[in-house]
Amino acid sequence: MPANVLFAAKPERWDQYRDVLPRAFEKAGLDVDLRLDFAPEEVDYIIYAPNSELQDFTPYTRLKAVMNIWAGVEAITHNETLKAPLTRMVDFGLRQGMVEWVTGHTLRHHLGMDAHIVNPEKRWEPTPPPLARDRRVTVLGIGELGLACAEALAQLGFDVAGWSRRQKSHEDITCYSGADGLKDALKRSDIVILLLPLTPETENTLDAEALALMPRGSFVINPGRGPLIDDGALLAALDAGHIAHATLDVFRREPLPGDHPYWTHPSVTVTPHIASETRAETCAEVLAENIRRGEAGAPFLHVVDRAAGY
Amino acid sequence: MPANVLFAAKPERWDQYRDVLPRAFEKAGLDVDLRLDFAPEEVDYIIYAPNSELQDFTPYTRLKAVMNIWAGVEAITHNETLKAPLTRMVDFGLRQGMVEWVTGHTLRHHLGMDAHIVNPEKRWEPTPPPLARDRRVTVLGIGELGLACAEALAQLGFDVAGWSRRQKSHEDITCYSGADGLKDALKRSDIVILLLPLTPETENTLDAEALALMPRGSFVINPGRGPLIDDGALLAALDAGHIAHATLDVFRREPLPGDHPYWTHPSVTVTPHIASETRAETCAEVLAENIRRGEAGAPFLHVVDRAAGY
Repeated sequence: MPANVLFAAKPERWDQYRDVLPRAFEKAGLDVDLRLDFAPEEVDYIIYAPNSELQDFTPYTRLKAVMNIWAGVEAITHNETLKAPLTRMVDFGLRQGMVEWVTGHTLRHHLGMDAHIVNPEKRWEPTPPPLARDRRVTVLGIGELGLACAEALAQLGFDVAGWSRRQKSHEDITCYSGADGLKDALKRSDIVILLLPLTPETENTLDAEALALMPRGSFVINPGRGPLIDDGALLAALDAGHIAHATLDVFRREPLPGDHPYWTHPSVTVTPHIASETRAETCAEVLAENIRRGEAGAPFLHVVDRAAGY
Repeated sequence: MPANVLFAAKPERWDQYRDVLPRAFEKAGLDVDLRLDFAPEEVDYIIYAPNSELQDFTPYTRLKAVMNIWAGVEAITHNETLKAPLTRMVDFGLRQGMVEWVTGHTLRHHLGMDAHIVNPEKRWEPTPPPLARDRRVTVLGIGELGLACAEALAQLGFDVAGWSRRQKSHEDITCYSGADGLKDALKRSDIVILLLPLTPETENTLDAEALALMPRGSFVINPGRGPLIDDGALLAALDAGHIAHATLDVFRREPLPGDHPYWTHPSVTVTPHIASETRAETCAEVLAENIRRGEAGAPFLHVVDRAAGY
């Protein structure tokens, strides 16, 4: 008997996944019936995006798992109608895309590229930047994505630190944790990269007080979640020249509204939530593997700890 | 008896080296007399930059080596008054600076950053770029600097090839060589990085014919030497949209003259010869090591093959 798999995400996602998923299931040797609708009581697995219309899981009585195709789960983790295990997406494309975007924008600020990309006055000022080993980069949040970014930056020669709620250790990365550790991490940062999960505790991590701890002339890069930053405090720190530049990929409202000051601030770069996108092909392999595990009674990969919120 | 070391470069270089060199010599346990002038027949070693006033080496009769502090040696290699061994600079700072600049600008073009850095129309178009594994990067010239760049790009996940005059092999880099190999290398390149030495054979490597072999919409990055490119042919290929963008750090005349079309072309980024700069501290360690070798009768590091021109 096939496993019944419901695809519950925006219709444009279905266009990306309709061919890719059956191929991944076949490759994994799975017998799957994949559809956009079922009688709820017949569904075994839901492939899910939190902006789907499906928000009430009560009628899905035999559900084995809800498999989120996003890395972020804050929009579903508190849904009390969901009793089945929730998994989040950790795939090669998601991690690799994040590493590329973060490394690229870190190097951009490190090298001072913007002054060359836009240079109408034809300034020729051959002052080379410091070497990466003299640039202190701190990644706030060294989970799956943050750790991959921190390792890539250390590999390129940057002086890298990471901060996490619980103390970690790593041979190439200076690890900080806890509230005092956050202060120390901010004080040593020429470039801060935000890759924390969004929880009540992490909201407004970069507020006025935190920004004031960063050295004058430092940089903020946010590919994590918009509400990690107190936007008003960041704008004030940019206006004061305390923060030299912010490159932001995520926002409290997306698309970023046309009248938001980030769009026109000379020290802000907006990118349209592209730092890391689930790619259907690499994602489908992970979904197939989790269905295989569910059918075999093995533990799922990347199960969300809903009490912790990630 | 101390070794007599003449410093022959522009006065502004002396400001960078005057304190750093004695420290490096002391650290290496060397007995050195370092000066800006000596009677020529008393000089053992010359620390040299090709734009120095010293161009006639005939009176330096007991010279053991001329140690260039630049990586490029084309301005001295054909000087027939020089009979002593010539070494070129290969130092950590030079290599590392080049890796950072090349990796940064490769990621910039790969990620399409410019469209976000300058975006007055507030376009929000969340189409993520392909992953690095789907971007074919080719480094022309895989000597000391080119190989380090190719390895860093392969480490980040790019699909990397290298071209050199003589066939090489490398486990992570597809190696091409010879005239036919150059054509194959250009045909497969989304991004071409020029790191060839400048010799009569490499001048105008990127001419109209070579540019035509590159796929439409590809990118040129030149941190090597200005004359590697036929400027007129590149401008024509940019105007035709065949080449999407060129990022150039080196030019036939530097500073790049204010009326040069590269300054105002919308598809060209000029950087002021900063991709890789000899850093006094890391450089001094290499100079001290070569003097130590010369005094011990051991072979010098990084000796130039003057027939080959590098």
